[in-house]
Amino acid sequence: MAQLPTVEDVARVANVSRQTVSNVLNSPEIVKPETRGRVESAIAELGYRPHASAQRLRTRHSSTIGIRLDPLSNGVSGSILDRYLHALTEQAALRGMRMMLFTARDTEDEIEQFRRLRDGADVDAFVLTGTFYGDPRIDWLISQRVPFVTFGRPWGEDMASPDHLWVDVDGFSGVYDATTHLLGRGLTRIGYLGWPAGSGTGDDRRSGWLTAMRERSGLPAADLEALMFVNDESVPTARRAMEELLKADFTLQGLVCASDSLALGAMMAVNEAGRRSFPIIGFDNTPVAQAVGLSSVEQRLDQVAAGTLELLMGATGRRVIPHGESAGGSGEPVHRLVTPKLVVRRSSHLAPVEEAGSTTAGNHNRKENQ
Amino acid sequence: MAQLPTVEDVARVANVSRQTVSNVLNSPEIVKPETRGRVESAIAELGYRPHASAQRLRTRHSSTIGIRLDPLSNGVSGSILDRYLHALTEQAALRGMRMMLFTARDTEDEIEQFRRLRDGADVDAFVLTGTFYGDPRIDWLISQRVPFVTFGRPWGEDMASPDHLWVDVDGFSGVYDATTHLLGRGLTRIGYLGWPAGSGTGDDRRSGWLTAMRERSGLPAADLEALMFVNDESVPTARRAMEELLKADFTLQGLVCASDSLALGAMMAVNEAGRRSFPIIGFDNTPVAQAVGLSSVEQRLDQVAAGTLELLMGATGRRVIPHGESAGGSGEPVHRLVTPKLVVRRSSHLAPVEEAGSTTAGNHNRKENQ
Repeated sequence: MAQLPTVEDVARVANVSRQTVSNVLNSPEIVKPETRGRVESAIAELGYRPHASAQRLRTRHSSTIGIRLDPLSNGVSGSILDRYLHALTEQAALRGMRMMLFTARDTEDEIEQFRRLRDGADVDAFVLTGTFYGDPRIDWLISQRVPFVTFGRPWGEDMASPDHLWVDVDGFSGVYDATTHLLGRGLTRIGYLGWPAGSGTGDDRRSGWLTAMRERSGLPAADLEALMFVNDESVPTARRAMEELLKADFTLQGLVCASDSLALGAMMAVNEAGRRSFPIIGFDNTPVAQAVGLSSVEQRLDQVAAGTLELLMGATGRRVIPHGESAGGSGEPVHRLVTPKLVVRRSSHLAPVEEAGSTTAGNHNRKENQ
Repeated sequence: MAQLPTVEDVARVANVSRQTVSNVLNSPEIVKPETRGRVESAIAELGYRPHASAQRLRTRHSSTIGIRLDPLSNGVSGSILDRYLHALTEQAALRGMRMMLFTARDTEDEIEQFRRLRDGADVDAFVLTGTFYGDPRIDWLISQRVPFVTFGRPWGEDMASPDHLWVDVDGFSGVYDATTHLLGRGLTRIGYLGWPAGSGTGDDRRSGWLTAMRERSGLPAADLEALMFVNDESVPTARRAMEELLKADFTLQGLVCASDSLALGAMMAVNEAGRRSFPIIGFDNTPVAQAVGLSSVEQRLDQVAAGTLELLMGATGRRVIPHGESAGGSGEPVHRLVTPKLVVRRSSHLAPVEEAGSTTAGNHNRKENQ
């Protein structure tokens, strides 16, 4: 077996010192472009590969981002975080980064995993999902000055803290647009089916509906109160709730929902009751929504992933920015709020009928809102 | 900041040599249990953590398994590999292993990624999905003696080769059981809606239906031919195909499908045609199937993940077994064929009606077949 090329071989071919090769590998910005080009050519010509573990030890860069993979969820919207993981892995690869998955029993155990991965220089940064009020993971990462970004904003805490970089989807605007879409077609009595109050995400989505209705429905406040319905995240209970609702209130003209699960349950009840032309819009644009022709608000997880990496690495960087430093100076925003997009399908009954259930999400399925 | 404890600290507290500590960390089996216990106590007491990158360099063990994450798929069954990844990550963690994700543009690029990850001692083994006939990735991994397991059997090649460890789901048996389930309720004219011939997985599933029908339907071969329908993996085209079918053949009594996408399309056509008591069974037990009450064959990805790790690491091992060696001697099987499970819901209309769309897949939703 031929010997693998070494850093000495590269130095000899490029006619530079060993140290210069090392600089090109570890701190390319300090090497003159002409010299760097020569070294890079030699590296390519020889097929030299720096030994990753040795390089990690030297540089403390692993080119790896850690993320906890939560237990399998089989719900309708369970795939959202998987879709985010796909987008993140794809886009990270374009910056030369890989994703490391780990699991944890609970928050304390997750912090222990952070510690191990950090101590071993196994990852350069973490991405966190499922953040919550007073989340101790955030405190630990800040205190240890470990770079991280959360998918999910710190509800009720300091959303502009430069220590806490976050990216999130603007649920308010998504539901606002969905509601406006129906109001714009001449309907006024649009209901909202959402989760019980108290979750940042749920309350934000609900106020998107409420604001649109206040601005544009012309209905008095008391009527709006009566159009707001609450249900747990479950298809069958949403279905039963909608069955009751259809018996009790035949003046309801349409429904915007906090999730595709709720929308699907409502849709099944409406279909069984034989109510045609009753528009329903869900949230998440899941495969289920695509399959059954349900209009839904798409989170645009590609943009969420892009925002995550921008916050971690700058607009085009290939290295994680150290904690507390900023990609573009102190005025740089420390979060990204992604505007979601309404995808109109048959269920909203107010746009040209499209094919439901295409196995790929083609752009022809999308309609820009506003 | 306090100094981190070193291997010397551990040696001093445990009253052993530095080399003994190193042995406990890297080759615990050669250390006497009593000594090992003392060293492990000292490690726990001091909170000593071996430096992962240094340890990787020494031992060439990264405790990491690499897997390529394919581009995002939004289809109904697109989440199957994500569910496998969840199960694998969870079960790998119980053996002290983590998962490393990477992407690749094509097969050649994937082999290049294998090479980099192998050269850097970044991973101990690979898991491959989406294998195909004459797959050059397999040849490369075998030639390089890199441990790997494929999820998917080498159709048409040597399925018993000790060089190619694989785990797969027994689609034949899943479809056989689904067909038998309907035949057992007194129906005979059960159709099969599957993919065009030529894919190992698709042909295997179809022959499960064909075998069950030959054995138990009492229909002549010509009739069976007429009950076999072909469609691409798409909800809307399956729906149109079923619409045509319902117009043309009203003697069809039920349908077993190669996927939930096909089954969902068929179900939509049947519902619109107002055909009650027309049983349909899908394959994959996706969230969509749960949501709409579709009976489906569950792949049992937890068992697929368990089989993957057993082949890589032995029944209870915590290290990847070197390529060409076997967990249990030369007689050990080099594959695992997981028997899937029929999950009966409303769509098969022949069992007590269950709640559809529970957001978690509770065991109460499952019914053992056979």
